[in-house]
Amino acid sequence: MAVVTDNLLAQGLKSIQADIDAAFDSLLPVPEDPRARLFEAMRYATIGGGKRVRPLLVAAVADMYGVDRNAAVRVGAAIESVHVYSLIHDDLPCMDNDALRHGKPTLHLAFDEATAVLAGDALQCFAFELLADVATSGDPFVRVELVTTLATASGHNGMAGGQMMDIAAETASFDLATVTRLQQLKTGALLGAAVELGAILGKVAPEGRRHLRAYARDIGLAFQIVDDLLDHEGDAALAGKALRKDAEAGKETFVSLLGADRAREQARMLIDQAIAHLAAHGPEADLLRALARFIVERDR
Amino acid sequence: MAVVTDNLLAQGLKSIQADIDAAFDSLLPVPEDPRARLFEAMRYATIGGGKRVRPLLVAAVADMYGVDRNAAVRVGAAIESVHVYSLIHDDLPCMDNDALRHGKPTLHLAFDEATAVLAGDALQCFAFELLADVATSGDPFVRVELVTTLATASGHNGMAGGQMMDIAAETASFDLATVTRLQQLKTGALLGAAVELGAILGKVAPEGRRHLRAYARDIGLAFQIVDDLLDHEGDAALAGKALRKDAEAGKETFVSLLGADRAREQARMLIDQAIAHLAAHGPEADLLRALARFIVERDR
Repeated sequence: MAVVTDNLLAQGLKSIQADIDAAFDSLLPVPEDPRARLFEAMRYATIGGGKRVRPLLVAAVADMYGVDRNAAVRVGAAIESVHVYSLIHDDLPCMDNDALRHGKPTLHLAFDEATAVLAGDALQCFAFELLADVATSGDPFVRVELVTTLATASGHNGMAGGQMMDIAAETASFDLATVTRLQQLKTGALLGAAVELGAILGKVAPEGRRHLRAYARDIGLAFQIVDDLLDHEGDAALAGKALRKDAEAGKETFVSLLGADRAREQARMLIDQAIAHLAAHGPEADLLRALARFIVERDR
Repeated sequence: MAVVTDNLLAQGLKSIQADIDAAFDSLLPVPEDPRARLFEAMRYATIGGGKRVRPLLVAAVADMYGVDRNAAVRVGAAIESVHVYSLIHDDLPCMDNDALRHGKPTLHLAFDEATAVLAGDALQCFAFELLADVATSGDPFVRVELVTTLATASGHNGMAGGQMMDIAAETASFDLATVTRLQQLKTGALLGAAVELGAILGKVAPEGRRHLRAYARDIGLAFQIVDDLLDHEGDAALAGKALRKDAEAGKETFVSLLGADRAREQARMLIDQAIAHLAAHGPEADLLRALARFIVERDR
């Protein structure tokens, strides 16, 4: 059973990674004019990097409701655009000043800072362009809901708000409730949006999505706790990025507040809870279950 | 007649400035949590600054087709969010490194660079959140078209693409055709979008918008030529921003390529042409006519 589930996840990841790479490759052909450098930067950041967890969540949920794969991949590319833009801006010298991302030089080092700012800006915009134009059997309400869901998750009441809290965390001493809220905004909002986008494509009404949102909230928090554990204990070469930066910056994390053992226990509990939210589903939710388990078991 | 037109424009500007300030004030209340600094930065950049030319274009066109004022103001706030975000990022040290904007310290100086990056990011996102949620008598197609139009104008095939060309202009020597294309993307795309958004709200079909797009294209180019003239001859204190930076950066402009006299003549010709595109309209287009004339006659 464990092997079957692992194969399911490995296959799901491999397949979405190929589809997302192919989508960016075909959607962002480099023009023969002075904008070329911007497109090259967008391609550098989007093609061939990252686990593609968010697109996989979109596709896994969309598949549960029989959504056309092309639509799911397009929406997956949109949410990945937002994720990638946030990493590009996060890595800038005035933010985290990181040199390495997915084992490659960060965009502002591979290109330059101005191009990195612009490429991030263009990728955020691109996400909404993709969503407003996704094929949804002519139903414009679906597209409007996709845009609203992603915009809410990305902006000042979502990811960008969480980023601001994260900057404030360097000078404030946050308690567990505040760190939880910070992470729910900074990473949880977008993971939750991924699941919602899949369900919106599947034309699931808001009340029918509640258990999926609960699943996303739990895996999102577990994801961040494991990130903190990996940051605390992990291997920078394997991670493909710098580690232990939070401790150096004096930021409270789940590990600093709970200790590594209780943090690990908490992550496992959240994953059990996430899987319990899927109880009403049969084998069609196995990929979501496998993904939840992968989150606590991953080593990078 | 000139006085009537001037009053119309003065009244239109005053009224949209008040409405846009009020919209941002009510849409961005500062939360009592560590996100407060982000919201304060967004308010600093959006409230009480700028001529609001883009929202006025939206409102002027929307008004020609009897659109509800609240919807026009909301869409005006959306396009202004994109314009303001682009100014914030443009002013960053890694881009134009400007210290003054609308006579106030630029956002990264008034706050800090990280907050300026984030506030710009959040404002771009906010624009799409506003558009996807605008009241359009329940017609979701209108909202989808608003999002598509603004996303296309802002992204890599619009404003962001133009910004990249503008950076390339520092090291390349562009000819008139390339400078024209650069400016059509960098500022023209968003001005064109403003007019389109107003017409979309008015449920004007694409073919019925063609003359408005032509109007927008002409005033957009004239706007940029006058910007170059003011940059060449203007008063920094009056402009509220640094001037003559293009010449210092070795960039070709309409003035460097055409000379000041021919550039001025070209701007006047474009404005006449823009007004000619409105020939099918009666007095309901007088505000657009007055705005076109204002563009060549302004001193900042």
